[in-house]
Amino acid sequence: MSNNLPLPQGTMIGILGGGQLGRMLALAAARLGMRTHIFCPDPQSPAFEVTPHKTIAAYDDDSALATFADTIDIVTYEFENVPAATAEFLAARKPLHPAADALAISQDRLAEKSFLAARNIAVAPYRAVETLDQLRQGLADLGTPAVLKTTRLGYDGKGQRLIKSLNDAADAFATLTPKPLVLEAFVPFDKEISVVVARNVQGQVKTFDAAENLHKNHILHTSTVPANISPTLEKHAGMAAKAIVIALNYVGVLGVEFFVVPGQDRPNLIVNEIAPRVHNSGHWTEAVCLTDQFEQHIRAILGWPLGDPTRLADVVMQNLIGDESLALEELLAAGSQPHLYGKTAPRPGRKMGHFNRIVPK
Amino acid sequence: MSNNLPLPQGTMIGILGGGQLGRMLALAAARLGMRTHIFCPDPQSPAFEVTPHKTIAAYDDDSALATFADTIDIVTYEFENVPAATAEFLAARKPLHPAADALAISQDRLAEKSFLAARNIAVAPYRAVETLDQLRQGLADLGTPAVLKTTRLGYDGKGQRLIKSLNDAADAFATLTPKPLVLEAFVPFDKEISVVVARNVQGQVKTFDAAENLHKNHILHTSTVPANISPTLEKHAGMAAKAIVIALNYVGVLGVEFFVVPGQDRPNLIVNEIAPRVHNSGHWTEAVCLTDQFEQHIRAILGWPLGDPTRLADVVMQNLIGDESLALEELLAAGSQPHLYGKTAPRPGRKMGHFNRIVPK
Repeated sequence: MSNNLPLPQGTMIGILGGGQLGRMLALAAARLGMRTHIFCPDPQSPAFEVTPHKTIAAYDDDSALATFADTIDIVTYEFENVPAATAEFLAARKPLHPAADALAISQDRLAEKSFLAARNIAVAPYRAVETLDQLRQGLADLGTPAVLKTTRLGYDGKGQRLIKSLNDAADAFATLTPKPLVLEAFVPFDKEISVVVARNVQGQVKTFDAAENLHKNHILHTSTVPANISPTLEKHAGMAAKAIVIALNYVGVLGVEFFVVPGQDRPNLIVNEIAPRVHNSGHWTEAVCLTDQFEQHIRAILGWPLGDPTRLADVVMQNLIGDESLALEELLAAGSQPHLYGKTAPRPGRKMGHFNRIVPK
Repeated sequence: MSNNLPLPQGTMIGILGGGQLGRMLALAAARLGMRTHIFCPDPQSPAFEVTPHKTIAAYDDDSALATFADTIDIVTYEFENVPAATAEFLAARKPLHPAADALAISQDRLAEKSFLAARNIAVAPYRAVETLDQLRQGLADLGTPAVLKTTRLGYDGKGQRLIKSLNDAADAFATLTPKPLVLEAFVPFDKEISVVVARNVQGQVKTFDAAENLHKNHILHTSTVPANISPTLEKHAGMAAKAIVIALNYVGVLGVEFFVVPGQDRPNLIVNEIAPRVHNSGHWTEAVCLTDQFEQHIRAILGWPLGDPTRLADVVMQNLIGDESLALEELLAAGSQPHLYGKTAPRPGRKMGHFNRIVPK
């Protein structure tokens, strides 16, 4: 395959998932002269509005997947919960980036933590929990408060319970089982930062600057760049992100969330989680980088040289959740770049769009 | 209509013309959560790859136009040669921006020059030419060399002849008639610059910085920003561009090409031509402006507040003509932002893409 790299204009890129990330990937692919085919079970998928090629089908519909595979040259995805069987089915037919093993690791909090810890990348202390006794032992080891999480399919604060004392253990366990669980020590972090990193088919690696993230109701509210951290910490975050994609032999863009935690001499970083896809906290790159995270992902999977992630200005990205997207006048004030996802119904908690503002120096 | 402004997300924007400009308008509209329907006679239109809504039909197909009009909320276009009858047919059914009178003026070099001259905006001396005698008289008035042009449908150097001496007159006239003609004095200009200006439905006006343009084989080769001109001249160019859109009661983005000509004390500007659409010499805005010319056009026609045209860096835009687009490795060198149009055949002289490079300060 490497003889045919970089893939030419007109390459048909299959994208699993038709939400805003799939939509923004398709728009980036179009800017590079590529075509896209979106596969998503939801007939109202926002990404269906930016390409003429779509398949509405379930992710376990092998017949639809086989037809989809026939129409595309390579395949990628917008979300980390692509079923393993779907990934394997497609990977047997066309190049899949990022590869199925990256999915497998990021889909399982326990596998992810083991993977990172084995590579000396710091994570919060944790214990696997299959029984209530294990949970009690874990709480004895890690102390309280601690957080009990399902190992799979958690996002935006879903699938987790804060355990403040040993008395809460049974209730939390009952709520979240029978799913496999992991207990994590509660980390009193100063702030959350994230780094978006890319690695292409040939192994070239580039990072964007770190963003400092604020959440509201467990959903990302703002990402501010530069993050208010020391140059040393910023450098360490970038190095950790690079180490992760190299260790995974990863192809595409990957988001790494870190907690900045107080240390003896200076703050330290621990990895909160990794996401094998373009990342909400990287949307600021659209406004102030010559190559944004979406184009970087497309370049990476096409085997193109990675683009220049240099940041031209300081920036704040803010998500528009639910009916916040209706306040157009404010968004459109001078100095803001809105990106709206074309979703029809502004349900509470739904990500409707975002906007970037330049911060004057 | 003004009560309903700004138009909401999900507005269906009809676009006449499916070339790269229509494609880039559709991509910009998608970033604002809008939908687009492309109308173009060419089944291979590049813009058809970035939306599921298309009509393949001739511009004089009233039945297709009527069906198209039924599906859209507003209509715009990517090229100034939209037939007047098409524009009128659609404008009777849905809001058309820019309006038909702007089309009429920019489609006719003679009408355009009269319009500009009547508003004290300098143009090259010119004469209408209907007969060979008028041409000879014009040459006597304006001197040689002079340029004889068809009043309509000329672009990229087509439809014009340089007349070096009175002896060339009959031959040039015979080549270009029976079309209506205009004779223009040859202007020994120092350079060409251009300004992209926008005016929205409510009358708000904003300009982008002036670009300095170089041509190769009568096709735009590079646009460099900032242009190497005095701040006074840059200011005058912006003022002239604003005066034009205000005089036209124009809605949308408009490109104005100027020649910088030697004057007694300092250089002067004369308008070469205006284009009632997004402009090739404005493609640099994609890389270094929070709002690029495509988004600015969409904002303008939707009745949204215009975006911030502030330039974040110095930039050079270069067109990729014909098989230049095949040299991917060079384009993708660090520090360049490519935009490829997804055209299948790199014919000589065909605009296949462009790329923007940041110029280090």
